[in-house]
Amino acid sequence: MTTAYQTLERHFARLSSLSDALGILSWDKEVIMPHGAAGRRADTLATLAGLRHEILTAPAMADLLATAEAQAGTALSAWQKANLAEMRRNHTHATALPGDLVEALTQATTRSEMAWREARENSDYASFLPHLTEVLNLTRQTAAAKAQALGLSHYDALLDSFDPGTRQAHIDPIFTQLQKDLPGLIATVLEKQASLPAMQPLQGPFAIPQQEALGRRLMQRLGFDMTRGRLDVSTHPFCGGATYDVRLTTRYQEADFIPAMMGVLHETGHAMYEQGLPADWVSQPVGQAGGMTLHESQSLLIEMQVCRSRAFVEWVAPHLREAFSAPNTTTWQPENLHRHLTHVQPGFIRVDADEVTYPAHILVRYQLEKAMISGDLPLADLPAAFNDGIHTLLGLKVPNDQHGCLQDIHWPEGLFGYFPCYALGAMAAAQFRAAAYKQAPDCATAVANGDFGPLMHWLRTNVHSRASSASMPQILNDATGSPLTAEAYLTHIRRRYLDRAPDA
Amino acid sequence: MTTAYQTLERHFARLSSLSDALGILSWDKEVIMPHGAAGRRADTLATLAGLRHEILTAPAMADLLATAEAQAGTALSAWQKANLAEMRRNHTHATALPGDLVEALTQATTRSEMAWREARENSDYASFLPHLTEVLNLTRQTAAAKAQALGLSHYDALLDSFDPGTRQAHIDPIFTQLQKDLPGLIATVLEKQASLPAMQPLQGPFAIPQQEALGRRLMQRLGFDMTRGRLDVSTHPFCGGATYDVRLTTRYQEADFIPAMMGVLHETGHAMYEQGLPADWVSQPVGQAGGMTLHESQSLLIEMQVCRSRAFVEWVAPHLREAFSAPNTTTWQPENLHRHLTHVQPGFIRVDADEVTYPAHILVRYQLEKAMISGDLPLADLPAAFNDGIHTLLGLKVPNDQHGCLQDIHWPEGLFGYFPCYALGAMAAAQFRAAAYKQAPDCATAVANGDFGPLMHWLRTNVHSRASSASMPQILNDATGSPLTAEAYLTHIRRRYLDRAPDA
Repeated sequence: MTTAYQTLERHFARLSSLSDALGILSWDKEVIMPHGAAGRRADTLATLAGLRHEILTAPAMADLLATAEAQAGTALSAWQKANLAEMRRNHTHATALPGDLVEALTQATTRSEMAWREARENSDYASFLPHLTEVLNLTRQTAAAKAQALGLSHYDALLDSFDPGTRQAHIDPIFTQLQKDLPGLIATVLEKQASLPAMQPLQGPFAIPQQEALGRRLMQRLGFDMTRGRLDVSTHPFCGGATYDVRLTTRYQEADFIPAMMGVLHETGHAMYEQGLPADWVSQPVGQAGGMTLHESQSLLIEMQVCRSRAFVEWVAPHLREAFSAPNTTTWQPENLHRHLTHVQPGFIRVDADEVTYPAHILVRYQLEKAMISGDLPLADLPAAFNDGIHTLLGLKVPNDQHGCLQDIHWPEGLFGYFPCYALGAMAAAQFRAAAYKQAPDCATAVANGDFGPLMHWLRTNVHSRASSASMPQILNDATGSPLTAEAYLTHIRRRYLDRAPDA
Repeated sequence: MTTAYQTLERHFARLSSLSDALGILSWDKEVIMPHGAAGRRADTLATLAGLRHEILTAPAMADLLATAEAQAGTALSAWQKANLAEMRRNHTHATALPGDLVEALTQATTRSEMAWREARENSDYASFLPHLTEVLNLTRQTAAAKAQALGLSHYDALLDSFDPGTRQAHIDPIFTQLQKDLPGLIATVLEKQASLPAMQPLQGPFAIPQQEALGRRLMQRLGFDMTRGRLDVSTHPFCGGATYDVRLTTRYQEADFIPAMMGVLHETGHAMYEQGLPADWVSQPVGQAGGMTLHESQSLLIEMQVCRSRAFVEWVAPHLREAFSAPNTTTWQPENLHRHLTHVQPGFIRVDADEVTYPAHILVRYQLEKAMISGDLPLADLPAAFNDGIHTLLGLKVPNDQHGCLQDIHWPEGLFGYFPCYALGAMAAAQFRAAAYKQAPDCATAVANGDFGPLMHWLRTNVHSRASSASMPQILNDATGSPLTAEAYLTHIRRRYLDRAPDA
């Protein structure tokens, strides 16, 4: 006889297929779709997302969940129980919102995104204000409905959509410490940097086929399985696709090979997480990656923690010279290459920021979006508040809203509660890296030889293979022996930028 | 108030989105998917196909169709009525089969296709026989169930799945005439060919980027809209993708540019049909292409009728010389190029056959599959019967089953009633081309100048824009003034290969 739990597994396997279809079709849209197909593709994606929602919220689903939960006691393994809990979480999120709110939000964000593109282009906040007002209004209704269903505060309910288990109470102490330490630290780092001999420019052009070949070699070094994924080109680099078909993208510029190379390494960090998820649970909720913070920790661990380290640069330098037939001059020595990979420069644009100034951009957004959700910040005051925040933390005067509160797509798309995960990911990356190198000292020696095997083994064992069987805070605590703090990140920044430690 | 018909249109628009998703994901599978994703992709495609079937066969659908039909009288336009009829036809086909039969057939054909690949490789019919027996058994049940639902004979019910409106009664007189005329015609053509001076070989290699650039230029000449489609490479050339995203493929070999070039022209013929369908009905059943015979007529009209004509070759010859930096010698003159494009050679393999011998391959398969469906041909006798047929029509002794009844994937996949459409498509192509050139004489002069505008205008008006608003026999009769016969095809073959008419 089929149990309720088994029936649920079948339903969720279908949902997993729909998610795979959405993943590949979204990748296709960004990478190779002819532009005349955009309208129809939007219909197709909306139809598949709608079917996924219908299956998840069908009346029978609630009964099956209740029955399976009642029978769970002795009948289910620990992973099956965790799977059932993830099914419940997905169901609660999906059923929390009335259909007309979902539809209103979809329509509002579609309009808002279009308006935002034009407003950013013209640095015209006033024209965007009515759209943001509408999106925020609907997002606040969303937060209220989800808070009710989940028994969480409004902002926590939004956070939980992107990062299950993460709460404002975890974030606040971390961000408070960053708020306190970061401005001084940035100043000291800049001072130290200014005291060093000038950085030598790397002379291009760097042919794109060589850049691509280099990227593929590094992906293979990291252990990326090319039989289960692809590397392509898109305007905005991302890691997407489907289970067993992890597709990452980068973009090339001939004048500088570093952005594409670091982009590939970053996305490969994401991809290794996906490829390291447990095969037995591939089609079930418990088998999925554990939220935004863990995902970002994996990409930043590879890109920032490891591949900008002096130890890695020592190994990669001759490979770079070979890839671009560069001369064996001081310019192409590890010392100068490392300077390029760790250059710090406060700037206006978040996505261009280095790892030292990056969290400052997030701190500003976190304070503002909490105040927008609570209603404490009137939207008319957003530009000035944004610019104040940047000035306080980075000492910069924002020249216009294009370089200020209009720069990111997240709020126009209704993504509130998403920004903090970027900074949490950076903190988690540092904490994971420190724990890995401490628990498995061969990680460090291997990376210095271009061998990512021991590090990936540690990550697979302690992070990837656990998928969604436990919460992010639990996985992080189990792997590193302590809850998430800013300590490892701050230590890392000091060792790399102030002590200039030879392994940092 | 929303009428039943309007609700049906919304349901069928969702089905259209699912079909688009299946089209792009299937294209992806053949063209760019990493091979390790094959298993998951099969699940995804099966899930989407299953959802499409569920929506189409949901109990509410039958009620909506009945209500809409009862209200249709005065409320609906002619196209809406045709749309409703196509909805009903789709529904009848989908509901005709019990779910367990559909599932059994899917599983049997999956096993059968795998067994066939190995059996063909080893030319081992005996190992394949149990699989074909199972597939045929289930296909006969399918035919019986559809015959019952559609009020058709068993074989006509299968035909109707691929080619709505085509009946054995239309095919038999055409194929009887081919059976009578073709062997003598082939002999005469070969005799004439032997009397001509020897064909000069075209010396390669032909670089693939040049071949691809040539293909793209010819696609644009034909009017293909690159903002709504793509050209790529796959093992087996095809035209697929989605509405407003028509993706065709070819394959290249450096030794010979003709296969890829003619492949691109063939698939562009299919693609122009898709791109010429009426925009207002893009998401509805009546807006879809009108079955296999019409589709194949459009590809063969472009590839065989027009682009192997002496008139087109005269125009294209200098472009070929330019594309491959070839010398202006007699080898590269239209006379010799035309010899290459119209070379006749009886052979064992259907897909490699020229347009003169091709119908013979179909005649053999048509007789045999009718006998298999009726039960008159025991499967143990299939190889001998197949080889007899080829010997009678082409005078060839089939050396083994790999070159005989095991060569095609159709029967292993359960596709019975599909083969005749290839030959009907060739007949229809000749009849449409003759009608177009007669009704719009500027078609011929324009093609001789590499201008496909007038011909495409005629095809759009008389074929493409009609979509599924009428049956194939009706569309063909309206466009050409007579029902489908073999006359235009036979006349074309005689003019091109015996008379060697300067425009043929």
